[in-house]
Amino acid sequence: MTKRVFNFNPGPAVLPLEVLETAQSELLDFKGTGMSVMEISHRSKEFEGVIQTAEADLRELLGIPSNYKIMFLQGGASLQFAMLPMNLRATGASADYIVTGTWSKTAIKEAQKLGAARAAANTEKEGFKCLPASLDLDPNAAYLHFTSNETIHGVEFVSEPTPPAGVPLVCDTSSDFISRPLDVSKYAVLYAGAQKNAGPAGVTVVIMRDDMIERTPANLPVMLDYKTLAASGSLHNTPPAFSIYIVGLVFQWAKKLGGLAEIQKINRKKADAIYNAIDQSGGFYRGHAAPEARSVMNIPFRLPTEELEDTFAKEAKKNDLIGLKGHRSVGGMRASIYNAMTIEGAEALVQFMKEFQKKNG
Amino acid sequence: MTKRVFNFNPGPAVLPLEVLETAQSELLDFKGTGMSVMEISHRSKEFEGVIQTAEADLRELLGIPSNYKIMFLQGGASLQFAMLPMNLRATGASADYIVTGTWSKTAIKEAQKLGAARAAANTEKEGFKCLPASLDLDPNAAYLHFTSNETIHGVEFVSEPTPPAGVPLVCDTSSDFISRPLDVSKYAVLYAGAQKNAGPAGVTVVIMRDDMIERTPANLPVMLDYKTLAASGSLHNTPPAFSIYIVGLVFQWAKKLGGLAEIQKINRKKADAIYNAIDQSGGFYRGHAAPEARSVMNIPFRLPTEELEDTFAKEAKKNDLIGLKGHRSVGGMRASIYNAMTIEGAEALVQFMKEFQKKNG
Repeated sequence: MTKRVFNFNPGPAVLPLEVLETAQSELLDFKGTGMSVMEISHRSKEFEGVIQTAEADLRELLGIPSNYKIMFLQGGASLQFAMLPMNLRATGASADYIVTGTWSKTAIKEAQKLGAARAAANTEKEGFKCLPASLDLDPNAAYLHFTSNETIHGVEFVSEPTPPAGVPLVCDTSSDFISRPLDVSKYAVLYAGAQKNAGPAGVTVVIMRDDMIERTPANLPVMLDYKTLAASGSLHNTPPAFSIYIVGLVFQWAKKLGGLAEIQKINRKKADAIYNAIDQSGGFYRGHAAPEARSVMNIPFRLPTEELEDTFAKEAKKNDLIGLKGHRSVGGMRASIYNAMTIEGAEALVQFMKEFQKKNG
Repeated sequence: MTKRVFNFNPGPAVLPLEVLETAQSELLDFKGTGMSVMEISHRSKEFEGVIQTAEADLRELLGIPSNYKIMFLQGGASLQFAMLPMNLRATGASADYIVTGTWSKTAIKEAQKLGAARAAANTEKEGFKCLPASLDLDPNAAYLHFTSNETIHGVEFVSEPTPPAGVPLVCDTSSDFISRPLDVSKYAVLYAGAQKNAGPAGVTVVIMRDDMIERTPANLPVMLDYKTLAASGSLHNTPPAFSIYIVGLVFQWAKKLGGLAEIQKINRKKADAIYNAIDQSGGFYRGHAAPEARSVMNIPFRLPTEELEDTFAKEAKKNDLIGLKGHRSVGGMRASIYNAMTIEGAEALVQFMKEFQKKNG
């Protein structure tokens, strides 16, 4: 019998068991081709089926209008941090960034290497615990960038910020991608590294409105050029085929679960259970994020001492609750409860938290 | 019983059956972790084991000296076409390129977008059938770039060109990577998209001498910056973990086969069988490349008419010989016989070629 644990890793992260089982069953022979999906040509009709189905399913899940392209790229969100300003910010123009945690801080830093970028807000002084009280927006910004969920600090926007009229909204949604419904038409660009909610590492999903793609300047290297990449249907060069295949299976699984409204309910239920355990612990567990900014995906929390935190991580692991050690910049614990984490898993963690407090509180 | 065919795809390409079977067996539970290798943290000791073993095995296979770093990057060789000049060619300097086929032509084009690059030779007028008779080398070039094997035109260097003293040699070895022993110390940089000889698409192996890494200028985007990527051990951001894992299994398989000297013998045997079938066909089959430039990896060949070529591809497919249609720029057929293609597969193709000629010659 295959052993499986409850995996709270922040990314790469838990995948739906059903997806892994499908991948396993057809790993040597993909749909009767006599080849692994890793061995078929990216120009074959079989792989066309994989990528086109993945795109159509994502379009359906998120309700992506027809004037948006979907790209499956490489290099993670980190490469997008550079590609966005290279493509979307004209020479001499400035872009606005809302800085609410490590990832948006990294994004603006990359943008500043290549030109002008300013912080429309920055909550670092408040310890990246909250959403900004107000925004100082540039009405002429090339775009307004925000990170819908900060994986490390567990701070998530409840709804998207409103940019000034005519300023396109760009969102790094890596760690809450397809975790809830959203109105894509409010965004010019949405992008996500797959390795949290959508699949394995190695593929980044970029959803981009057509007029943004037209901004790409001449003479960019092709692999950094949205216009070329979008026009080729992500097939300018050999794409990360296996990662795209798994992402496609995850989209199918998400549709079968009932789509994003249903998934949001399940995610809310898991998060509520854990936040309740924190809030009802009388201060034994302390959440990092301010209550109104709490992420439904990543829950960083502290215990009374670092020693207890170490013990917590070790004993949790013995109980097959894996990946709970927090990021060094926040310390303590972090429970990442992406789409593929089951309610059963969240409840097992809550049960463990209660027992641990009883023994050590 | 799982169906398997003889897969002559140019890339993504055939993988060793043993590698696929290992991946399949541990896809849901990697070494007792209770997680897929796609679900474990790239900072975990388990993944450290994967990437460090892959690196050590490659170092052993190719005999890579200790003053070279190995990086596992994203974006394919196509992104390297841009990163190489960005990192290795100082402002105002020029780089030399030997152009012997589609890929080296693309590489110089990318380099010219970003600065000066000149062709030290260009065999396009001769139809990309041969190696250059002579080289016009710039003694001050930032580097000399060549493509050891042209996947589309089936032209392969027998040994590396000699750059002027002090000019570093840079090689795109995507389609003959680990297919034969080579003296790494003659190279400053070797790079290869994995999806031909070393694994699935989604990871690019870059082998770079330490002094080259020191050339990286300040303020490059981190994902395009060899210095940052090398210093982090390919873990600056989440790497394409599953692809690296498969590449590691391929390296282990190559070692078990007896290493690159042994693999070269097997590859030579497969190539000889097919070239002999071409040469002994009395002109029914015509190889694209000049005999002295013939690739051991990719064998493009034509038949008397396009109609016969269509029939050949269709009938071959019926006989479970897959992926033999040539690239549109050369036409006809192409047999890609990378490391994982068995001698049995090459012999099955030869047998089919003979029978096809008997029926249609």
